Amino acid sequence: MSANVSVSVPADVPDEVRETYIDNFSTITKGTGRLMLFAGDQKIEHLNDDFYGDGIHQDDAEPEHLFRIASQGRIGVFATQIGLVARYGRDYPEVPYLVKLNSKTHLVKTAQKDPASPMITTVAQVVALRNQTGLKIAAVGYTIYLGSEFEAQMLAEAAQAVLEAHQHGLLTVLWIYPRGAAVKDEKDPHLIAGATGVAACLGSDFVKVNAPKKEGTASAVLLKEATLAAGRTKVVCAGGSSVDEAKFLKELYEQIHTGGCSGNATGRNIHQKSLEEAVRMCNAISAITIDGASLEDALALLKGN
Amino acid sequence: MSANVSVSVPADVPDEVRETYIDNFSTITKGTGRLMLFAGDQKIEHLNDDFYGDGIHQDDAEPEHLFRIASQGRIGVFATQIGLVARYGRDYPEVPYLVKLNSKTHLVKTAQKDPASPMITTVAQVVALRNQTGLKIAAVGYTIYLGSEFEAQMLAEAAQAVLEAHQHGLLTVLWIYPRGAAVKDEKDPHLIAGATGVAACLGSDFVKVNAPKKEGTASAVLLKEATLAAGRTKVVCAGGSSVDEAKFLKELYEQIHTGGCSGNATGRNIHQKSLEEAVRMCNAISAITIDGASLEDALALLKGN
Amino acid sequence: MSANVSVSVPADVPDEVRETYIDNFSTITKGTGRLMLFAGDQKIEHLNDDFYGDGIHQDDAEPEHLFRIASQGRIGVFATQIGLVARYGRDYPEVPYLVKLNSKTHLVKTAQKDPASPMITTVAQVVALRNQTGLKIAAVGYTIYLGSEFEAQMLAEAAQAVLEAHQHGLLTVLWIYPRGAAVKDEKDPHLIAGATGVAACLGSDFVKVNAPKKEGTASAVLLKEATLAAGRTKVVCAGGSSVDEAKFLKELYEQIHTGGCSGNATGRNIHQKSLEEAVRMCNAISAITIDGASLEDALALLKGN
Amino acid sequence: MSANVSVSVPADVPDEVRETYIDNFSTITKGTGRLMLFAGDQKIEHLNDDFYGDGIHQDDAEPEHLFRIASQGRIGVFATQIGLVARYGRDYPEVPYLVKLNSKTHLVKTAQKDPASPMITTVAQVVALRNQTGLKIAAVGYTIYLGSEFEAQMLAEAAQAVLEAHQHGLLTVLWIYPRGAAVKDEKDPHLIAGATGVAACLGSDFVKVNAPKKEGTASAVLLKEATLAAGRTKVVCAGGSSVDEAKFLKELYEQIHTGGCSGNATGRNIHQKSLEEAVRMCNAISAITIDGASLEDALALLKGN
Amino acid sequence: MSANVSVSVPADVPDEVRETYIDNFSTITKGTGRLMLFAGDQKIEHLNDDFYGDGIHQDDAEPEHLFRIASQGRIGVFATQIGLVARYGRDYPEVPYLVKLNSKTHLVKTAQKDPASPMITTVAQVVALRNQTGLKIAAVGYTIYLGSEFEAQMLAEAAQAVLEAHQHGLLTVLWIYPRGAAVKDEKDPHLIAGATGVAACLGSDFVKVNAPKKEGTASAVLLKEATLAAGRTKVVCAGGSSVDEAKFLKELYEQIHTGGCSGNATGRNIHQKSLEEAVRMCNAISAITIDGASLEDALALLKGN
Repeated sequence: MSANVSVSVPADVPDEVRETYIDNFSTITKGTGRLMLFAGDQKIEHLNDDFYGDGIHQDDAEPEHLFRIASQGRIGVFATQIGLVARYGRDYPEVPYLVKLNSKTHLVKTAQKDPASPMITTVAQVVALRNQTGLKIAAVGYTIYLGSEFEAQMLAEAAQAVLEAHQHGLLTVLWIYPRGAAVKDEKDPHLIAGATGVAACLGSDFVKVNAPKKEGTASAVLLKEATLAAGRTKVVCAGGSSVDEAKFLKELYEQIHTGGCSGNATGRNIHQKSLEEAVRMCNAISAITIDGASLEDALALLKGN
Repeated sequence: MSANVSVSVPADVPDEVRETYIDNFSTITKGTGRLMLFAGDQKIEHLNDDFYGDGIHQDDAEPEHLFRIASQGRIGVFATQIGLVARYGRDYPEVPYLVKLNSKTHLVKTAQKDPASPMITTVAQVVALRNQTGLKIAAVGYTIYLGSEFEAQMLAEAAQAVLEAHQHGLLTVLWIYPRGAAVKDEKDPHLIAGATGVAACLGSDFVKVNAPKKEGTASAVLLKEATLAAGRTKVVCAGGSSVDEAKFLKELYEQIHTGGCSGNATGRNIHQKSLEEAVRMCNAISAITIDGASLEDALALLKGN
Repeated sequence: MSANVSVSVPADVPDEVRETYIDNFSTITKGTGRLMLFAGDQKIEHLNDDFYGDGIHQDDAEPEHLFRIASQGRIGVFATQIGLVARYGRDYPEVPYLVKLNSKTHLVKTAQKDPASPMITTVAQVVALRNQTGLKIAAVGYTIYLGSEFEAQMLAEAAQAVLEAHQHGLLTVLWIYPRGAAVKDEKDPHLIAGATGVAACLGSDFVKVNAPKKEGTASAVLLKEATLAAGRTKVVCAGGSSVDEAKFLKELYEQIHTGGCSGNATGRNIHQKSLEEAVRMCNAISAITIDGASLEDALALLKGN
Repeated sequence: MSANVSVSVPADVPDEVRETYIDNFSTITKGTGRLMLFAGDQKIEHLNDDFYGDGIHQDDAEPEHLFRIASQGRIGVFATQIGLVARYGRDYPEVPYLVKLNSKTHLVKTAQKDPASPMITTVAQVVALRNQTGLKIAAVGYTIYLGSEFEAQMLAEAAQAVLEAHQHGLLTVLWIYPRGAAVKDEKDPHLIAGATGVAACLGSDFVKVNAPKKEGTASAVLLKEATLAAGRTKVVCAGGSSVDEAKFLKELYEQIHTGGCSGNATGRNIHQKSLEEAVRMCNAISAITIDGASLEDALALLKGN
Repeated sequence: MSANVSVSVPADVPDEVRETYIDNFSTITKGTGRLMLFAGDQKIEHLNDDFYGDGIHQDDAEPEHLFRIASQGRIGVFATQIGLVARYGRDYPEVPYLVKLNSKTHLVKTAQKDPASPMITTVAQVVALRNQTGLKIAAVGYTIYLGSEFEAQMLAEAAQAVLEAHQHGLLTVLWIYPRGAAVKDEKDPHLIAGATGVAACLGSDFVKVNAPKKEGTASAVLLKEATLAAGRTKVVCAGGSSVDEAKFLKELYEQIHTGGCSGNATGRNIHQKSLEEAVRMCNAISAITIDGASLEDALALLKGN
């Protein structure tokens, strides 16, 4: 696949994997530079809470549901843990994968102990799996809890992961959430702009942040500080917990067109639906993110038109 | 040995050890895909509590009792520490072994400190012992205490162990128990389903969990959420402390036929008996687990008929 | 580039990179032995506080502003994180870079926990980026919080970084700030002299300290103890938070001519201005630092004359 | 030297060092399978308390006293730290040595902090010293404080040490003492049996435990649970603090003949005497341990008859 | 240089560096087996307290003062950090150096946290600097705070440093100070004898301890327990804070002739003087330590006669 948009390749990508990097970038952004990331890494983060219970379609009870969506829906990349990729990947070889390098459960709350989420899978192991299988593993991801007493280890591992991923032509997405006893307002727009600046300093290709909130100003407007602070690192955002679909798509549209985001990272709002509805939701999101479609066109896709 | 059932080989198993992986899978599941795991790793976990005292047959006072049972009873794999395998294995070369990679004693209680159980034996050492001796070492195991303040190290070591074991054609069993100050109900079926989902994310072949409990619903019914969440990772379960044998076998039957389990992990209910009775108990369990026998047929075996 | 001043090459620089070391020293001191360091590493340390808000020019909202200043202003070296160098360096190849090896956010305050800032980028990675790209990466930097309960790790990593950097002909700057529960007065001149002495013991080429303060004596006079204690390690100083420009330049002049400093490290007082004003500020600072210009001449440059 | 008794070589000893292992076993057990271990590792554990003061012969003030005893007395192996072996070993080349891999002082009490004793000398360094010098270094030792909050590190290091020692034909002795805030009764026979079972799981050749105590039953009788639980790992025991010699020898005799022990580990009861008396004490102990002598014969040796 | 006294080479010194070890020993003891160690490592330990202030000569404000003394005074070895050796060593190539491997500041007091002082420079780096430059680097040093809650790491690193130094023919000096919440009396003679015994167990060539103190007995007499406990490890002692010179020399004389010390380690009592007086102090100390001179002859040297 060739790049439709010019790709800015960072200097830590060696010449011999430059084409790999460009191919991966083009693949997961479908040649547009904008990313529709389908997040399927919550089976560790949220255990079974997101996958089973009231209001969740029974299709979601099994992990293969995620792969079916990733395969049939229109997405840029499917983010999940290496174990699931190893177990299902060969049956879904057409899906571009992002392997999440660290994960923790939500059992220990911040009130008990500041969040820590050290690496459980190394970049070298992701590269080995890619090379061994030919699967379309295009990126790695890592979560940093900024402001945690354990932030130092996460900053260091993320910095290492970015440099090492680039050495092998892999792209990087950092999830950065301010969290810990020292963090009073996790959605403070200024703090979220700090988070995207950190991602830029660490050299990541993408950074995923939560949508900022501040009384009296629209979230998409507040996002502008963060997308500026990120510089050449692209910002993707998510609506968080499951909400009304039309509202979700409207927020996404504004994050991109007003806030300067380069895409979205969406999990529960997709996979908690039946396969058919989840696929339509992917398509609607991708229309806005990748095609620059209008909200009306996206809503039409959502309804299966 | 060839596989009787089709074996789903995960993608992180390299081509050159694919046959080894399939052989190991067929060996410990006796070609059925279902596992009878004889657990003999409690001499560290419970010190001498399970092996000496009231109601425990004197045969159990010596560790060789475990090997005699594993050799004469019908089991899929015998799980124990590497030191015992090194000391007794050559006298019992017919037994398929699983080497437990981590262990802790029960002396420090959760009220004093959240449980931690770092690796004490590496996969590389298990592989070296296998290659050096030709013993039938088919698998490795690791215990994770989910929700402990030290969960991060255990998640990381388990993730590494699974990938490394697969690189050498070894199978993996993760014991996952929610435990720690943050865990209110260790038997909560939703939490146990979270645990099996974590095992799937880590890519393990099998996961051992405790039977869930919830007022008003049979445990085997509650297990269904967990066996669904595990996806292609197979769930094995245990009855826990020693109970009435007929009741134990009935629970096992229901765990498999109602709960969707792929086997069992049983320790005390076997080795606290005399050698003869222990062997009959193994045979009864294996009849249900491996042969799909009826409860009545299993009870007949238990009585030596 | 040849050295205009005789360069004292420390004995831990191997013969084969001696010329590289001399070239780097001459480059960043413009052949004078005095250093004008443009500090652009605060996007982690201070998140977005220094880059967005009241009194900060809107040019500063994007990280590329820093590179534009470094390119167009007269500076000795531009200090920032490796991720930004990797992302923008190829567009600004004329800039000499110092890569900061450690960074932390200011979210967790000393009252909550003593400061720790372990390494997030290794010297080996900096060397690899330099060799791979040909960028003018001339130095590395590391911050030590002396008196922190975690000082040991920082002392060790800094010591290692200096020796390893010298092995590759790179220069070193240590930022040393007394901080922690045990530190009563961070600006105590005797303590700051202790800090520069530590830098000498660690073998660093330069040490950056805060200007000392003590009732009744001018800061520049107080600095003399520190510049003596540093021995052959050169001391650079900064005025700290943004102040009146003329006052800032006067302090800088006195730090050099009275206090014995060999340069300055300046960030906010430069980059919070518009590009044009920032460039003029760089030029004024460099006139004093590098050319030995009078305060009046520097002020004229500041006004664009 | 050939083995007089058949030696059970564990499977983790590679074929190429099998003879070394057998020779070492035969050397330190004098071909009997029973071990007289002379413990001279307390200069770290107890500092100078055991070597200088009231009731201690002045010969014991210098460390060479230990080597003189080891050389002139009849012992199986002399256990001490690598530094002393390196400094005195060449003058006492006839002595078989066990190098203790970990040690701590007794200054920090359990009431202040649970005991931890990480490795200070590696097996690789012991092997290097053996190979470099030809000294009769036959074994390594390691102490585990079971039930300490830091038990995990000690279990892991001990497990590694056993496997690594066996790779080089060295024997292993684990000292296992239940200790820590969680341990109510360090001499509980059931707990001590747990300790010997742990040693078996770790694959050690020998385990040293304290003599169990329980109101109403003789210590040697209580030991039987422990020697059974140890399986093929041999148990050695000690009388602890210095006691009446005849009583000491009687306890030793019963530990072996009633309790099932395979030897003893004795320090203070030997080295706090003059050289001549210490040598006679060694000979008396060895008579019981190695020769199966009667208590009367041993007492005669003690008196120099 | 050949050895005037017979040198006892420990067994962990390989044959190929035996001559290097003997040369180093002869160099720093001037062929006598007794050591005059000039301690110049306090710029980290005490920051600038020892080098600037009332009663300290202004020559001491710059680190080069230490090198001038080491060059012009009569000393056995000059102990300091690697950074200073790297920066000044080539201008003072005639000086024998000991590189101190660990250092901490005195900012965090024992009341706040038990002392820890992990390694900041490795033996490998010292060896590399020696080999690369030809400087007379003859020894390494390490400080252990015995009785600290962090004693384990220091014991382990010291043990490793001794073995590794000997592998390269370097000598070792361990500074061992009992310190921490568990230590009631840092000068207790029995505890100091424990410290020298620990040094012996770790295999160090020399151990530096503080002079013991106990009501009613002269310090030099109290030292005898320690010099006996040290065995073949040589003990050097210091008077501590700056005192009257004649008293200092008298104490030194008695430490050697009564206490059995093999030398001294002196810092502040030398370098806080002017260069000329410092040189005379070195010569007086060396006369006692190395030449076995009388106190009167040493005092004459002190006065420049």
